[in-house]
Amino acid sequence: MIGPQMATMLGVVVTDAALTPEVAQSALKAAVEDSFNCISVEGHMSTNDTVLLLASGAAGKQPLEGKNLAAFQSALNELCIELAKQIPDDGEGASHLITIDIRGARTKDDARWIARTIADSALVKTAIAGGDPNWGRIVSAAGYAGVPFDPASVDLTVNGFPLYEKGAPVAFDAQTVSAAIKANRETSVVLTLREGTAAIRFWTSDLNVEYVRFNADYTT
Amino acid sequence: MIGPQMATMLGVVVTDAALTPEVAQSALKAAVEDSFNCISVEGHMSTNDTVLLLASGAAGKQPLEGKNLAAFQSALNELCIELAKQIPDDGEGASHLITIDIRGARTKDDARWIARTIADSALVKTAIAGGDPNWGRIVSAAGYAGVPFDPASVDLTVNGFPLYEKGAPVAFDAQTVSAAIKANRETSVVLTLREGTAAIRFWTSDLNVEYVRFNADYTT
Repeated sequence: MIGPQMATMLGVVVTDAALTPEVAQSALKAAVEDSFNCISVEGHMSTNDTVLLLASGAAGKQPLEGKNLAAFQSALNELCIELAKQIPDDGEGASHLITIDIRGARTKDDARWIARTIADSALVKTAIAGGDPNWGRIVSAAGYAGVPFDPASVDLTVNGFPLYEKGAPVAFDAQTVSAAIKANRETSVVLTLREGTAAIRFWTSDLNVEYVRFNADYTT
Repeated sequence: MIGPQMATMLGVVVTDAALTPEVAQSALKAAVEDSFNCISVEGHMSTNDTVLLLASGAAGKQPLEGKNLAAFQSALNELCIELAKQIPDDGEGASHLITIDIRGARTKDDARWIARTIADSALVKTAIAGGDPNWGRIVSAAGYAGVPFDPASVDLTVNGFPLYEKGAPVAFDAQTVSAAIKANRETSVVLTLREGTAAIRFWTSDLNVEYVRFNADYTT
C-alpha cells in the first residue's frame, strides 16, 4: 500500500543545521514534492504517511540563509529522493525499479499526473516485469491520464532505446530492448511531449507474481 | 487492458425493433452508462472500445414509443449489463467477479468514482483473490477517491456480512467471511454513505497470479 501523499510511511530526516521552523517546513515541503510525492507502488494511498524534519541547530546558532540555505535545500532534496526511491525499489516483490521521466509538459502537475498514470498502470508494470518493450501500453496510459497533449508530438524511449517518435512507433530490435530490460534492475522510461517545458521524474516498481502473492496471502 | 470508456472491446447489439436513429443512440447511451461504463479489469483504458446497436425494423414499421420503447430500453439495459459483466468475469486469470455497490452518494458520478477507485485498487483485488475480508483496503480506497464524504457515516458489507458500521470496524468472524469469499466466484461489496440517495453498481475482477503471468508473458 504505497502511493504516499503523506500516508503509512514514516520518514524522519535529522540535521544539526540551524533552521527556523518556517524555513524547515518550506524546505521539507519543497523536497517532498519531487521525492516522496513522486513515487507509487500501486497507487493505493494510505492514511498516515509522514515525513518529519528535525533540526537541532547544534551546527551553529544562526539560522541558515542565502547560499548556505540553498546548499542545505539541495542536500535535503537529494536525500529525500534517495529515501523515496528506496520505497518502490524495495516494493513488494519488485524486480524492477522504474524511473519515469515526463518532459515537455505544459505544467509540472500535468507531467506528474501523466507519470503517475503510467506508473499505476498494471499493464505497464507487468510489461516491464516480463521484459516487454510495450510502447503501446505506455503511450496509451499517458493518453488516458486526462491531460491534453498532441499525440502526434510524442517521443518515447525505454532504457535509451527510441521506441516511438512523433506519435508513431519506430523500428527497433525487440529482442535487444527486451534483453536490456531483463538484464537491468533499473528501467528508464522517458516520454517527451511538445507542450511546454515542465518536467518531472517519478519512480515506481514493476508488478509481478510476488506482489500478488504478498498481498493476497497477507491477512489483517 | 479493460477499463472501457468505449475503447479495445467490440460490442454489437442487434434488434428487429423499429427505432429512429436518435432514439437508438439515446437508448444505447443510457444503457451503456450503467453497464459498459461500470466495469474495469485494471483500469487501463484502451483507445478503441465500441458498442453498436443495429436496429433492422423487421418487427414493424412504426418506430417504438411510449410503453413499448420503455420495455425495449429496459431489455437493452439488462442485456448490456449481462454483456458488460461477462468482461471482468472473464478477466485475465480472474477467480472472482466482484460487484461493488455504492449507495447513499451525493451524485451518481460520485458513486461511480468511488466504485471505480475501489475496483482499480490492486490491494482490494488481491485481498479478494486471497479470501481476505480486508475492510481497511476497501474503506481507504473509497477515502482516496477524492470524493468528499463523512467517514463516520460509512457502512460496509462483504458478501452480506457487516464488516464496518458508522465509520468503525465491527466484530465479525474472519474465518467465516473468508470461507464465504473463497467458496463463491461472485463477491459482493456494498459501501453505504450518508451523503444522498445516488447509487451505482460496478463490476471488476480480482487480481491474482494468473493475471500477472498473462500480462507479463504476452508480448506485442
